[in-house]
Amino acid sequence: MGLMSEALTQILIPLAAFIGIGFALLQWFLVSKVRVSSGSKLESEHNDKLIEEDEQEEGIDSDDVVAKCADIQKAISEGATSFLFTEYKYLGIFMVVFGAIIFLFLGSVKNFSTESEPCTFNKEKICKPALANAFFTTIAFFLGGLTSALSGFLGMKIATYANARTTLEARKSIGKAFIIAFRSGAVMGFLLAANGLLVLYISINLFKLYYGDDWEGLYESITGYGLGGSSMGLFGRVGGGIYTKAADVGADLVGKVERNIPEDDPRNPAVIADNVGDNVGDIAGMGSDLFGSYAESSCAALFVASISSFGSSHDYSAMSYPLIISSMGIVVCLITTLFATDIFEIKNVTEIEPSLKRQLLISTVLMTVGIAFVSFFALPSEFTIFDFGSEKVVKNWHLFFCVSIGLWAGLVIGYTTEYYTSSAYSPVQEVADSCKTGAATNVIFGLALGYKSVIIPIFAIAASIYVSFSLAAMYGIAVAALGMLSTIATGLAIDAYGPISDNAGGIAEMAGMSHSIRERTDALDAAGNTTAAIGKGFAIGSAALVSLALFGAYVSRAGIKTVDVLSPKVFIGLLVGAMLPYWFSAMTMKSVGSAALKMVEEVRRQFNSIPGLMEGTAKPDYATCVKISTDASLKEMIPPGALVMLTPLIAGTFFGVETLAGVLAGSLVSGVQVAISASNTGGAWDNAKKYIEAGATEHARSLGPKGSDAHKAAVIGDTVGDPLKDTSGPSLNILIKLMAVESLVFAPFFATHGGLLFKLL
Amino acid sequence: MGLMSEALTQILIPLAAFIGIGFALLQWFLVSKVRVSSGSKLESEHNDKLIEEDEQEEGIDSDDVVAKCADIQKAISEGATSFLFTEYKYLGIFMVVFGAIIFLFLGSVKNFSTESEPCTFNKEKICKPALANAFFTTIAFFLGGLTSALSGFLGMKIATYANARTTLEARKSIGKAFIIAFRSGAVMGFLLAANGLLVLYISINLFKLYYGDDWEGLYESITGYGLGGSSMGLFGRVGGGIYTKAADVGADLVGKVERNIPEDDPRNPAVIADNVGDNVGDIAGMGSDLFGSYAESSCAALFVASISSFGSSHDYSAMSYPLIISSMGIVVCLITTLFATDIFEIKNVTEIEPSLKRQLLISTVLMTVGIAFVSFFALPSEFTIFDFGSEKVVKNWHLFFCVSIGLWAGLVIGYTTEYYTSSAYSPVQEVADSCKTGAATNVIFGLALGYKSVIIPIFAIAASIYVSFSLAAMYGIAVAALGMLSTIATGLAIDAYGPISDNAGGIAEMAGMSHSIRERTDALDAAGNTTAAIGKGFAIGSAALVSLALFGAYVSRAGIKTVDVLSPKVFIGLLVGAMLPYWFSAMTMKSVGSAALKMVEEVRRQFNSIPGLMEGTAKPDYATCVKISTDASLKEMIPPGALVMLTPLIAGTFFGVETLAGVLAGSLVSGVQVAISASNTGGAWDNAKKYIEAGATEHARSLGPKGSDAHKAAVIGDTVGDPLKDTSGPSLNILIKLMAVESLVFAPFFATHGGLLFKLL
Repeated sequence: MGLMSEALTQILIPLAAFIGIGFALLQWFLVSKVRVSSGSKLESEHNDKLIEEDEQEEGIDSDDVVAKCADIQKAISEGATSFLFTEYKYLGIFMVVFGAIIFLFLGSVKNFSTESEPCTFNKEKICKPALANAFFTTIAFFLGGLTSALSGFLGMKIATYANARTTLEARKSIGKAFIIAFRSGAVMGFLLAANGLLVLYISINLFKLYYGDDWEGLYESITGYGLGGSSMGLFGRVGGGIYTKAADVGADLVGKVERNIPEDDPRNPAVIADNVGDNVGDIAGMGSDLFGSYAESSCAALFVASISSFGSSHDYSAMSYPLIISSMGIVVCLITTLFATDIFEIKNVTEIEPSLKRQLLISTVLMTVGIAFVSFFALPSEFTIFDFGSEKVVKNWHLFFCVSIGLWAGLVIGYTTEYYTSSAYSPVQEVADSCKTGAATNVIFGLALGYKSVIIPIFAIAASIYVSFSLAAMYGIAVAALGMLSTIATGLAIDAYGPISDNAGGIAEMAGMSHSIRERTDALDAAGNTTAAIGKGFAIGSAALVSLALFGAYVSRAGIKTVDVLSPKVFIGLLVGAMLPYWFSAMTMKSVGSAALKMVEEVRRQFNSIPGLMEGTAKPDYATCVKISTDASLKEMIPPGALVMLTPLIAGTFFGVETLAGVLAGSLVSGVQVAISASNTGGAWDNAKKYIEAGATEHARSLGPKGSDAHKAAVIGDTVGDPLKDTSGPSLNILIKLMAVESLVFAPFFATHGGLLFKLL
Repeated sequence: MGLMSEALTQILIPLAAFIGIGFALLQWFLVSKVRVSSGSKLESEHNDKLIEEDEQEEGIDSDDVVAKCADIQKAISEGATSFLFTEYKYLGIFMVVFGAIIFLFLGSVKNFSTESEPCTFNKEKICKPALANAFFTTIAFFLGGLTSALSGFLGMKIATYANARTTLEARKSIGKAFIIAFRSGAVMGFLLAANGLLVLYISINLFKLYYGDDWEGLYESITGYGLGGSSMGLFGRVGGGIYTKAADVGADLVGKVERNIPEDDPRNPAVIADNVGDNVGDIAGMGSDLFGSYAESSCAALFVASISSFGSSHDYSAMSYPLIISSMGIVVCLITTLFATDIFEIKNVTEIEPSLKRQLLISTVLMTVGIAFVSFFALPSEFTIFDFGSEKVVKNWHLFFCVSIGLWAGLVIGYTTEYYTSSAYSPVQEVADSCKTGAATNVIFGLALGYKSVIIPIFAIAASIYVSFSLAAMYGIAVAALGMLSTIATGLAIDAYGPISDNAGGIAEMAGMSHSIRERTDALDAAGNTTAAIGKGFAIGSAALVSLALFGAYVSRAGIKTVDVLSPKVFIGLLVGAMLPYWFSAMTMKSVGSAALKMVEEVRRQFNSIPGLMEGTAKPDYATCVKISTDASLKEMIPPGALVMLTPLIAGTFFGVETLAGVLAGSLVSGVQVAISASNTGGAWDNAKKYIEAGATEHARSLGPKGSDAHKAAVIGDTVGDPLKDTSGPSLNILIKLMAVESLVFAPFFATHGGLLFKLL
């Protein structure tokens, strides 16, 4: 037994969750102090004249500007809320149907018998019936889905609450605007981390009332929580990704390229859809995604622990090690946040990126200490871990290394991503330079950059896998993933900061604010692009570890002893699995392309048919564009979603557990590469364009200004990168982990009834 | 024992090779009947006036045109010859150094002892010393390298011999031009297939003089032939690919985009380099590549056979089954060729593509019969095959199925590739349509098309793997690969036809021939783009099977019983292996990009500094552009080459045979996807551009004509696709198979001395 008593554990975990929620509410309160009046009385005036002179807007107290910001914010918030409600309505139906599938499939394992059975791993004990597991898995699935939706929704709410406030603060100083954007990101980060922990904690304790000392069944059912979270994450990412990029690409193609009007110009009919998209895609989608990763890695770790010595000796504190790590993470992130909001102050544009990077470093260093603390107090000094049929003896400091290496691998991935996507370094500058010879070389260099950016993250992931796998088998991988995700609150804060700043810039442009304010929000946004790429890097890196942990749990649960590449069943799985990310990307890329074409038609139509639109005397019809994005994303998210959800079911049912294991491994090793390269290529193109626009160096000025041939080439690269970095790339990490968690949940079914095709032949 | 006696086998194999060579020479003779006078007396006149009026050139017997064509042909041929000589000089050094490494590494396995040892697989027998194997492997390595270089060189020679002749025949009719281009392709195809077979056959018989009945050692040494062939193939593909695309992209960026002059315009200083590039990259590089695949699959099959019952019972005919299949392939392809050259006649542009497609179908159907024939005569009705430590009982009709499924999978891949890259079908038309909204949507749709085109080939490959693996273990895979490659002569003929037609078009443009002739060569070329893509599809599909066969042989040779994904050593290999294609592509893409930028600078410089160049009164300095391409390709091929050659050595020596097995499996399953998507994306963009230019349908005309915005967007896509389809994509299949064959050759060393790092830890 470790030093921590069960009672203490039972107190500390919810305490940490409540501290997280409290801190998030405090941040929200601080953000809310920036006043945005409703401005309804000014609305008619506002409509008459959308474009105003620069000078007029400088005064901080101009009611007119505040009112406009409020109006725009309201439009964005309403658009985002209405989209999410529509999306959740469809997803609700999906959840019910898929929940029924889970119940029926898992219930059929023992033919819906209500009798208790010997446990799967500990044959001497009696466990609850498979039917109960089917029922509780379904319940956990719903809980995971709900929490995921809630995470996304709350994130969107705070983001659309903060965007206009950031714009307004930008009139005062860059530092004040930064604080608002960052605090809002922190609200999302802490709410998500704390909620995820709390719901999981409560579920376990409630399920325990039924399961008693059948921990195998308990933690098997809990895996449904991860599946629910990730299913919502998938549709959130894909749907949101298609929404935002259809609008963004469509708006840019007509606005920037054909009409030569600035980004986010209020005359562009797709501009509201574009800004709504940032919130539903980059905020809500990402929130659901990262929540899914967090839920899955916790479930994978808990499941493996339950069939190890922690489970059989009923050591509650050691069993809860994954949850205690996450609790510690909340506290560490809280301290880290203070460094950005209270200890250092941003006075200059150039300090933004270092400040955000420092967040990563501080949280990693502090968390390493935290992990050491938790590992020594919560764990016995020696214990055994289930290792594919045998038992592996592990010491508590082994687990300290496992969690830490995951954590530090995350930092390496973050810093590598920053190097390849920030315009402060040579890779992006080279891509910008290649714009001199046109869009083709820009695309060639950008693709090459993305491919190259894969190398270091893969070595980092490989190193963590090797170390944690060697020290503590699949449990080591699971806690390494948790290590990477332990600072999720900080990661999300700096990630969500990006779209909020992007929106703030949009609002400044739409409200017709002065050039200098737009420059400030642009600077915030440029740093945001890089942090968004870092966030995606984290999401992918952790997804790789999580998937591997889930893969291990699946293999254990399905009773497979080896996954031998030399077996044809496994090899064809591997090959086809490696193909799936391509199939998936083909669907999502084309969805964005087609939806963007529709958007282009509509925007062109409005410019051609609404008199006075180009002159700024008439208001465009924003709602039609919002509707195009909404319809496209809801329709187009179905095929890729079906591919991900059905593949494990088909592979497992018809080809059996071994082929499915191959599919999981193949999609994992291939998907990681596609995802990292897509997301970094897109980030680099975006910042190469911003680098030329900002013209901060001699070199950048030689390529610019806006509208030069090099800049036009850069815009093309940026547009190509949009679906890569915000739709297909980040969705791929859900592909790999969702297939893995789904396989884990359905493993009892596949192990009993799977492999029909080979059985028939 | 089978029905065929050893003596008959000993006669038939060389006979088939000689028939192939004879047929190739006959085709060459037929091509040579088209006269191209040297035209030296006209040279000065020619220089004075490069651009002439259209009307003047219609007469078939115009000496001036013939003389010009001869001059241009000479320039291209000299450029290509000089490049290949330079390249081979460097590669010669590489071969000597690497040959020494092979000898030293393999010799060290038994500390350079000259004493005979018990055999590895048949412990009761005494085999020749490891030192002898080291020596003969090195010899086989040199022979493979030489044959590969010879194949590439001869292909280039015939292609540069045929290009101008195709142009001249195009004045008469499209059918006559087609026949010349196709016959020339056939020369290359048959020479390569026959030479490869003959050298391998002779080597085996010579080696046998020393090895006697030690077949294990004999066929182990013969694997060096595959390594040599593929090493040359690697540098040929990469060097040639960088050469051709640097010139092509550079020429297009200034010529088409900035100066608005047609492709292959003689005023463009990079035009000769571009045409030379087609011959050294698409012809010589591809020849070396496919020769490598052929040599490797033969070696893999022979090696596995030697440790199976064929080897232990010394059944020569059955042992030679792979060679007999290839012999039959030569005969089948000979008959197939007659269908294109003698039985059907091309009268119309629209008949070209169907005719080439028919070649694939005819050869596949005939070959299926041929395989049945060979399988029943050469093989005993039942025998055993080595299966990772155990023996698998196989019947002769099992092998018939293995070879046939490989063959038919090749056809499926070929037809799928055609569907995705020919402008006759909706995918390319959709990509062309997306050009309406600019280059960005074109690139997005093109990438999505490439990703999607992976699906069917992967299922085809997976099905062949499953069937052949299940029927005859790794031997089944090896002969399936041979099945796909058995019609290599036809495959190469229709593949080489492409660059020859491309060159013919270039010569027509440079010689200032009339528009109608250029249209004919363009039509030939458009079909050639599709067949080139089909050829690449074949190359990749066969590479996948070959690599898997080599992987199996490596695993057997290294004494590994399982390659378990659940072992961390294997898994990190898998993950890093899946990353290698990205690393490699990043290098090659960037090499092309950088070399193209240099080319652009030079072309711009010449246009700006040579008075009268744009007006056509002064001649550009072609030589400097040729030099830029040469220098760039020779310098830039080293890093990707080193990555491929060193990875197995480093992984095997430091991490051991299991990690290396993971690396091979990872790079295989990931590389296939990247290669197929890259090559099809590029082919589709190229043909989308040609579709708009040709304006053959209402839809195409609505996008064109040349110079329209949609056409400009299409040109950008085409340029991005160039390095994808001709440099990085096709080089990747060499990456996967070369690493596999290298691992096989070095397996004895790794098994004895490998895994240093883990031994130390």
